[in-house]
Amino acid sequence: MSLSNLAIIGPGLLGGSIAMASRAKNPATRISIWARRDDAVEDVKKRGVADVVSTDLRSVTEGAGMIVFCVPIGAMASLAGKIAPFVPGDALVTDVGSVKAPVVESLGKIFSKRARFIGSHPMAGSEQTGIEASRADLFEGAVCIVTPEEATPPRDVEQARQFWTMLGCKPRTLSPAEHDRVIALVSHLPHLLAATLVNLVCAENPDSLKFSGNGFRDSTRVASGSPGMWAEIFGVNRSEVKKSVDAMIEKLREVSGFMDDEAKMRQFLSDAKSWRDELKKE
Amino acid sequence: MSLSNLAIIGPGLLGGSIAMASRAKNPATRISIWARRDDAVEDVKKRGVADVVSTDLRSVTEGAGMIVFCVPIGAMASLAGKIAPFVPGDALVTDVGSVKAPVVESLGKIFSKRARFIGSHPMAGSEQTGIEASRADLFEGAVCIVTPEEATPPRDVEQARQFWTMLGCKPRTLSPAEHDRVIALVSHLPHLLAATLVNLVCAENPDSLKFSGNGFRDSTRVASGSPGMWAEIFGVNRSEVKKSVDAMIEKLREVSGFMDDEAKMRQFLSDAKSWRDELKKE
Repeated sequence: MSLSNLAIIGPGLLGGSIAMASRAKNPATRISIWARRDDAVEDVKKRGVADVVSTDLRSVTEGAGMIVFCVPIGAMASLAGKIAPFVPGDALVTDVGSVKAPVVESLGKIFSKRARFIGSHPMAGSEQTGIEASRADLFEGAVCIVTPEEATPPRDVEQARQFWTMLGCKPRTLSPAEHDRVIALVSHLPHLLAATLVNLVCAENPDSLKFSGNGFRDSTRVASGSPGMWAEIFGVNRSEVKKSVDAMIEKLREVSGFMDDEAKMRQFLSDAKSWRDELKKE
Repeated sequence: MSLSNLAIIGPGLLGGSIAMASRAKNPATRISIWARRDDAVEDVKKRGVADVVSTDLRSVTEGAGMIVFCVPIGAMASLAGKIAPFVPGDALVTDVGSVKAPVVESLGKIFSKRARFIGSHPMAGSEQTGIEASRADLFEGAVCIVTPEEATPPRDVEQARQFWTMLGCKPRTLSPAEHDRVIALVSHLPHLLAATLVNLVCAENPDSLKFSGNGFRDSTRVASGSPGMWAEIFGVNRSEVKKSVDAMIEKLREVSGFMDDEAKMRQFLSDAKSWRDELKKE
């Protein structure tokens, strides 16, 4: 992998931030960005975060040592199919999708003859979107999960981890299926809970928000995320998310059943506090 | 009401912060604090936030124009009963409990012959506790819900609102029952969801926390709150909290049922985003 030539497919929050972080960490890197629309190309050009910005996939990816897909999951396979014929044979290809098994399966197949594919999920999203929200420090301290398949060479895993580490991430490794199961619990379920809570409270009476404090504010921040992006995530990972929702419902019923038992409630809340306090130490 | 003589019953996060905020806003206010234990009295004295600090209820409350109960809900009635015989007849008495109907009923009765009682709920808690976490600016911009009964004179409502406004709060008014219903939704339910989510994720595999990002962190921050205080809140407000949990479960089932329908999911998430974005504007 040559980190000196980086191609980014899609100039959103993540694509833009990868460009800015790369430039900040490795000023010599040649950065090329593909955007679907001419006006997006103009917008990215104005920001001066890339050497090449184009709607032409070939001119963006040829010669690239590293290619990162930063488009919605549903758009990846079609773009990957177009790139495959002329992608450099030794290029490392990855993506930033929030669901991994289906992406790894389809892109892995497309790039199995040429180049080397490995999935990634940098957990550095935000409720903001678009290149205008991009930041060179977006990845600083963020977890990035790299998701090799059984047949992925260790060298590819190592190179993907190095790439994300260079951008500021803390790299972790999980299989694609394991990723989708764990992320359903720690990311997709919390998002669904936040959106459901906001809708529950406001459908009952929008004025209720006037009586909310910081707890509600923090608990529901993620509900301001992009509806389009999240609707796609829930659709693609629905089987794992539904399992998480079912488990959550079962646990809520259980707690509701012993709410009168102060000792039991205290133990339940104390367990949660101990686990949650661990996160503060990181 | 004379704001020049303030008695605070209980030197925790809220009691300590009321003393500090009062001193900052009205340096001439004479502040007296009651603490249950001698070592707590010594601790408060060292901080220099009060003129009188004592375990003796009489010396703390006599002459007070305003008395604020900042002890756990379960300790309020017994302390109120001890104070009632010598409390100044025109003193305004309030409390900071997170559940209002039972508190207003019991303290309202105790102070019905002497003094004037009105419930308050400043929503300025935090996952921290104790006077060591107290801050003069804790109430700045926080909502405080004042909960008059039907028979409460408008003058008492106005004075309570003025007191909290003086400390930096945005005052709101609700009946005690309405408070408990709304707060079950915007505060107690979010807390229960956070604690349940943390326990669900960690019971399955504590290592999952290593794969969590800012979304999980924000969604679960409140789960670090005091288990004892929250176990009491859930016990006292259990009928409203259980209703909220049931409504949440019903809504989660509904969403889980249309997770494959991208257009419907997008609408659901878009509604949540619109409501949640309103909170950012405040």
